[in-house]
Parts: sequence; C-alpha cells; structure tokens
Amino acid sequence: MLRRLFLLLFLCLPVFAQTTQEKVREYRQSNEHRLLKEFTTLLSIPNVAADTENIRKNAAHIVEMMKQRGLNPRLLEGSTPNTPPAVYGELKTPGAQRTILLYAHYDGQPTDPKQWSGTLPWQPSFRSAALEAGGQIIPAPTEGSLINPQWRIYARSASDDKAGVMAILTAFSALKEKGIPLTSNIKFFFEGEEEAGSPNLGEIINRNKELLEADAWLICDGPVHQSGVKQVVFGARGDTNVDVTVYAAKRPLHSGHYGNWSPNPANLLARLLASMKDDDGRVTIEGWYSDVEPLGEAERRAIADAPQYDEELKKQLGLKRTEGGGKVLLELINLPSLNINGFASGDVGDLARNIIPTTATAVLDLRLVKGNDHQRQTQRLIEHIRKQGYYVTDREPTDAERNQYPLLARVNVRAGGYNAERTRMDLPISRSVIDAVQSTSSGKIVLLPTSGGSLPLSIITERLKTVTISIPIANYDNNQHAENENIRIQNLWDGIETWAAIMTMK
Amino acid sequence: MLRRLFLLLFLCLPVFAQTTQEKVREYRQSNEHRLLKEFTTLLSIPNVAADTENIRKNAAHIVEMMKQRGLNPRLLEGSTPNTPPAVYGELKTPGAQRTILLYAHYDGQPTDPKQWSGTLPWQPSFRSAALEAGGQIIPAPTEGSLINPQWRIYARSASDDKAGVMAILTAFSALKEKGIPLTSNIKFFFEGEEEAGSPNLGEIINRNKELLEADAWLICDGPVHQSGVKQVVFGARGDTNVDVTVYAAKRPLHSGHYGNWSPNPANLLARLLASMKDDDGRVTIEGWYSDVEPLGEAERRAIADAPQYDEELKKQLGLKRTEGGGKVLLELINLPSLNINGFASGDVGDLARNIIPTTATAVLDLRLVKGNDHQRQTQRLIEHIRKQGYYVTDREPTDAERNQYPLLARVNVRAGGYNAERTRMDLPISRSVIDAVQSTSSGKIVLLPTSGGSLPLSIITERLKTVTISIPIANYDNNQHAENENIRIQNLWDGIETWAAIMTMK
Repeated sequence: MLRRLFLLLFLCLPVFAQTTQEKVREYRQSNEHRLLKEFTTLLSIPNVAADTENIRKNAAHIVEMMKQRGLNPRLLEGSTPNTPPAVYGELKTPGAQRTILLYAHYDGQPTDPKQWSGTLPWQPSFRSAALEAGGQIIPAPTEGSLINPQWRIYARSASDDKAGVMAILTAFSALKEKGIPLTSNIKFFFEGEEEAGSPNLGEIINRNKELLEADAWLICDGPVHQSGVKQVVFGARGDTNVDVTVYAAKRPLHSGHYGNWSPNPANLLARLLASMKDDDGRVTIEGWYSDVEPLGEAERRAIADAPQYDEELKKQLGLKRTEGGGKVLLELINLPSLNINGFASGDVGDLARNIIPTTATAVLDLRLVKGNDHQRQTQRLIEHIRKQGYYVTDREPTDAERNQYPLLARVNVRAGGYNAERTRMDLPISRSVIDAVQSTSSGKIVLLPTSGGSLPLSIITERLKTVTISIPIANYDNNQHAENENIRIQNLWDGIETWAAIMTMK
Repeated sequence: MLRRLFLLLFLCLPVFAQTTQEKVREYRQSNEHRLLKEFTTLLSIPNVAADTENIRKNAAHIVEMMKQRGLNPRLLEGSTPNTPPAVYGELKTPGAQRTILLYAHYDGQPTDPKQWSGTLPWQPSFRSAALEAGGQIIPAPTEGSLINPQWRIYARSASDDKAGVMAILTAFSALKEKGIPLTSNIKFFFEGEEEAGSPNLGEIINRNKELLEADAWLICDGPVHQSGVKQVVFGARGDTNVDVTVYAAKRPLHSGHYGNWSPNPANLLARLLASMKDDDGRVTIEGWYSDVEPLGEAERRAIADAPQYDEELKKQLGLKRTEGGGKVLLELINLPSLNINGFASGDVGDLARNIIPTTATAVLDLRLVKGNDHQRQTQRLIEHIRKQGYYVTDREPTDAERNQYPLLARVNVRAGGYNAERTRMDLPISRSVIDAVQSTSSGKIVLLPTSGGSLPLSIITERLKTVTISIPIANYDNNQHAENENIRIQNLWDGIETWAAIMTMK
C-alpha cells in the first residue's frame, strides 16, 4: 500500500509539484522568439548617457515594455532636461512584509563603432559563438526555428545592462502569466546614466525618497563567475576617473630639428605613469592602501570557498603573468586599483609623423574599496604628481605658467566619483537572496564580499535606509565596456529564472 | 667737372649696376600673383608618397611647370609602378666647369585633416600671420592687390618641400627672363618619397648614375635659422623609425573586474619607455652614444659663431625646461636622439572607457649622427627591450608565445632607415655656396655642420662621387611634419633670390 502511494506520488510529481523555476522556464521556452525580438529592439536604440535624445527614446521604450506587462510606469526626472530619467514602476503584493527594489541601468558605455569587428554597437547581431572563439555572424533566428542558447547577441549593453532590464521584466511576465504569487512588494528602477558615473542619481533619490525606500535594492548588473556559476555579490568597488595631460612645446615640433632638446610629452607622461606602480603592479603612491578596511571572517571564507579559476582565466586571456604578488583575482579586487583606460600622444600607425607632439594625455580609472574615500584618493594621486616635480593645474596652462614651471600637468577629476559599499552577508534579506539564487542552481553558487566592478551604491545607502545586493547574470566574457560587447543567450535565459526566484523568495 | 661726373654716375648706378639679386627681385615683384597662383595649384595636389595616383599627378604637374620654363624634363621611374617617380631635368651651360644638381622633394608627410585648425592640408589657405600668433584666414589675394610678405600660406608641403621645388624653378625663370647667365651645368632632381624615407632613391640613382653625377647635390629642404637668418647646412642626421607594441590580455577587460590582476599595456609601455631615458632626457640604452664621430674644430667654431637663440625659442615655445644638461640646441643635434612620435592605448577623451586595453603602441624616431649606423642603433634598442625582460618578436605573438613569456613586445623597424652624412666646409664648392648665399644677406649667415633633421644623403654619397650641401629657405615655425604646416611668403621670396645666387655663383 505504502509502495503504491509512493508510486502515485512519483507519477504525479511532475504535474502537481512543478517548481517555480520549471514554470518560468516553460514560459521562456514558449516565448523565445518574441523575447529575443523584444530584447534586440531595445538594444537597437543608442544609449550613451550624454546622447539626450536617444537616451529618452530608451526610457520611453522601457515605459512601453512595462505598460504591456500591466505595470504603471513613470519617469523620474532630474532637475535639468539633459538628465537621463530613471524609469520607475511599483507593484503592491497583498500581505507582503517586505519591499524590494529591482535595479538595472539602460545606458551603456560610449564606444567607437569603428573598433567593432564586423558588427555595430546599436545594430544587434547574432553570432554562433564568441567572436574570440571563432563565432560567425548568423542571421537573426526566424519564427519557429531552434534557438541555440550558446549563440551570442552582439550589441552595446547586450550584457551591461539592458540584459538586466530584460531579465527583470521577463521574470515578472513569466510569474504573472503562470499565476505564481509574488512574496514582496516590488519596485522597479531603471537608471539611465550609470555608465556616466550616475551624476544625478543622488538628486533623483532626494526628490523621490518615499518612492525609492525599500528593504533592499537588488541590483542586476555585472557578470556571473568566470566559471559560469551564478553568484551573489554583497558590495561593489567605488570608482572615480581622472584625466591627466602633460605639456611640451606649444606647437608640434620637427623631431629632428628639436629632438634631444625640446621635451617629449609622451616620454614625460610615460615617466610619470611609471612612477605610480612598482614592478609587480602595486601602486606606489603614498597612502594608496592605508585606509582599506580589512575583510572580516565571513568575507575571507567566501573568497576561499569560491572556485579557483585564475589559471584557466590566464590561459583564456593569453596571460603568462599577472600582477599582485601571486594573490588571486578575488583577493586583489578587495584592494583599490589604478588603471590606465587610455593613453594618447601624437599618432601611431600610418599617421605617425616625425614630430614631438605638444601634449600627452592619459585617462585613469581609480577603483576604491570599503574604507577609501574617492576625494581623498584622487588627492593622493595629485600629490604624487606634484612630488614628481609637476605644477598641477585644472585647465590649460597659461604662458606665464609655462614660463615659470619646468613641468606642467593638467589634472581633471571627472564628475561622478563615488565610494565603495558592502552589505553584511548574515542579514535576513541577504540569506533570503542567497537561498533564492541557490534554489535555481544545481551546484554551489559563489558568494562575493565585493565585485571588482563599481556601482554607485553609496549614493543609495547614504540617502535611504536600505542595503544593496547584486545578483548578476551576464557571461563573464561579455566584453563589457569595450567593443564587441555581447551576451550568451543562455545567460539571459538563466537570468530570468534567477530573478523570478528573487521575486518569489521566502 | 668731377662733381658732375659723380652725379652722373650716381644717377646711372641703379640702371647700369643692378645686381643679380635686384634683377631677380624685380622679376618676382612683377609676377607675385602669378607665382602664388602657380604655387597654390601645386600645393592643392595631395602628396603622400603612398598615394600613388596623386603622387603621379604631382610629378606630371611639375613636368608641366618645367616644360613651361623651356626645360626638357622626364620622369625617373623605380622598378615598380608604385614607386613615386623623381622628376629630372638638365641644362648645359656653355663653358661651365662645374655641374650642380638642385634637389627638392615634392611629397609630404601623411596628416590627419581633422587635426588642422580651420584649414585643410590640400586646400591652400592664406592667413594674415601665423595661426599661433592669432593669424586669421584671409581670401587669396586678387590680381593687382598688394601681397603682404608676412602673410602665410597654410598647406601640407607649403614649406616641406614644395617650397623647394617652387623656389628653384622660379629662380631659374627669373635668371632666364632677365638674361643673366648661369655659371654651372644644372641638373634638377625632385624626389617623390623623401617623407617615406626614400626607400627607392638608391635604386633610382643606380639606374641613372650618369644622369645624376654632379660636383655637388645642393638641397633645398628644411628651415632657415630660428632667428630668421639664412643658413647653409653641411650635413643631416640619419633617421630610422621603429614601431613597438606591448601586449596584455587578448581581449579588452573591464578595469574593475580585472584591475590589479591583469597587466595594463599602457602601464607596461610607459615603464619600458621610461627605462630608455634619464631625468635629463639622455638616452640610457647601452652604447647609444658610443660610436658618435666627434666634431672637428671648424664645426665647433661654426656652432659657437651661430646666433644664440635658445632662450628666445624657449619663450616662443612656452618651455621653461629643455633637455640635454644645459647644452644648446645646435650642440645637441650633433648627438643621436630617441623621440616618441606617438603613443596610443585604449582611448582618451569622450571615448575613454573603464577598460584594460589589449595593447599599447609607440612609434619611435631615432635620429643618427656621423658615426652611427642605423641598423646597429635599432639593434641596441631591441637589446634594451630584451634586457627589460621582454620577449621580442616582429609579428603578433602566438598563443604559445603568450603562454611562455611574461612580457611580449612586437618590434618592427620600418623600411627606409639611413645614416647621417656631413660635407667638409672647406671644399671649393662649399666656399662657393657660402659666398653665394652670403651675397644675398645683409647680416652674417649661419653655417651648420649638421641639420637636426634628416635627408637620405648617404644614399646619394654612397652611390655617386659627389657631396651634398643644404640651403634651406622655410621659416623655422612652419609646423613641418605636423598639422597646420605653412610658409611665410617672405621666405619664399627670399628663397628665390638665394637659389638664383647659387645658379650664378662664382
């Protein structure tokens, strides 16, 4: 009798006990063509934050996407019409004890279309695999054809971060369609200037404090672990950008008639940059690491538990050597960094000429960790430049300054710098998120104290009584911020299930 | 009676004793509009050596200019149709004991039109003064209007070196028109690939040895002294260009997720370049100065006699500090140099993104002096790069090389490097040229053992029993090789008189 009952239970299980994940997957499988069409339509709208006209087209388009899902979205504006608006929506869940705000951003990094290989940033294209793995351009799948989840979509923000907007809204559609009840009050918040450093996010929050309060801001941005395992990230590095230009003669000089005598700005800047790091890539600027808040026991354990992936990654990236004295990547992202985003002086290639250029410019990217302050850190950089003998100004040097100082550097800290943020892993909301994401994964998910990347989390936590947790979905090799950005379709599919789990978490 | 005779002589003097210089000036003054029209027409033909179609248009146009002067020009071709042809012409002078070859080049340095300020490289434009001195764009002078000799013509090769072609051919026209007899057999030779490093000049000489033999090759190229005084230059530095690229990860990486761990190529190249010079700009590459042939007494005296112009030049260029341990410019150009023509990695400005670029590239320009060998000098550079720990290759590194070597540099020596050359100042032909140029100048002219710039003189002197002497005409602030190249009209006028004096020298 007992045996029969078990048999009956076993047979009925697929019907009666279909999990939320299975139902969401079923929804996605029945709608793949429509979903990819909706996604590529969104990707085809240029989305650089400074491009006001197009950024507003993106916002309007997302408003439409939300209306189609029965939501009641609205734009949250800044104080000037040039501020990219945030797209906001909310949904009360009867009986819910908790409010979560789901965050993604719809703007993308600026990019030079000429640097893309065979495709263009705002003309989404399918490839059979990653470009670097020999993936070929293939036609967009036609209705009824099979969609291989290993295919990739190439477009600016395919991963960073329109994938976030798409995953969140699709997870919501799936739950609604399948009649699965939500467990929290939900707020949607899609930012339009994250890649510009969120210069107006603080103001938008200040203007809408009540709307934007939540028990947690849950953020869909960034990549899953390099091994492909899902991860939950409890912090992000802070970030600030600095432009540094050094000056030589006022006009470009013939390198023969003046070489050896008139200083070369690329040489000056090379020497200045070389003075900032030691052989092992450790920053030698005084005080650079002095106010780093050490990791706690839980964070150290999480790093130790994470898959060891560095050697595989080095092979993939063609790197024999990494920096940081043999420390692993996950450990090193818990230190502040100093990166050269770009360096330019004169020309290279066919346009190179035998001249001494007039200036050399580098754009620096400073990542910050818990304990760092972005203004203090840039001040350390400026002091270091002064110690190398430079007169530092924030505009073009005047003739009087040129006549007075042997070395001239213009240093401009870009607007929008912000500090790092980290949420405790043992909060009830942290536990709920971990369990929800773990429930959609067969293997053990990765828990990270911080992401290497940055999000303006402190702008949020300074203004609202809330915490932030990131649940990324993109493939790690998505070429985020660079040319040839892409998403692996399976990552989008997985992301929908992840975010549905969050909206229905205990 | 005596007094009357003196008066008569005095009145007749301007008529009977008009000098060659005065007659040439009269010719020029009567033809200024036509000459500028002819010159700007020549300047409007794009003239980058690699642009075969346009380079041949230039050659054909110069052939026409020479035919109009009653010369019988021809093209001297290389072994391939892509070789820019030299334009050649000759004229026997009855009774002449000497043959001189007059050299200029009609090609110009490559340039990015976008970097020009208000004008375009191959659309010659007039300015009221130098751009840097606030010169405004003015219309081309209309027939009959006064031409201010302080005006400038902005165009690629306005100075370097179509001005040479124009001055030589106009001097010839003036002498012919005024019936002034020449004193030498004259050969004209206008090269079409000097700015590309004259890769085929040796071959063109080999194919036409008899045609190109002369007692001296007299070269019209480069600027007069910075003080505006005319100069005769007895040598030129050699030159060779090297492209250096260093490698980081195979794909651009997010600077947050990988910064501190994955090496930054701009940082690597900055460190490599910084290792090549000391604080004072002295090259620290082993052996860099070891085979420099010391200056003789005559050369040292000539440098000491030259106007001391460094302080004025520093003021004009907005430089407080120069390199070379306090030595003057004219002394320093007698040493080999190492210049960075250009440096590029990632992007700067609006296109800068928070990434770790994949590569960083510098184009280096090595100037050589008497005693240096260009191949030996580039080998020293390569050895230095190896000593910094780099594996050096001449192509893109393979995956196997990436997995084997911690530091990878691609080094390509560009074709066309050549050595320095210097002619003795006390040869009879040297004395004749000095006297001729001095006769057109009210103040003492400058005599330089070598120019800082380069000309492929060794290609000539290795193949022909001849010597070379340069008699430049361009204003020193002509932005040679850079954007906004220009010539001051007075320099063109003066150059015509200089070269007429050479064609009629004793």
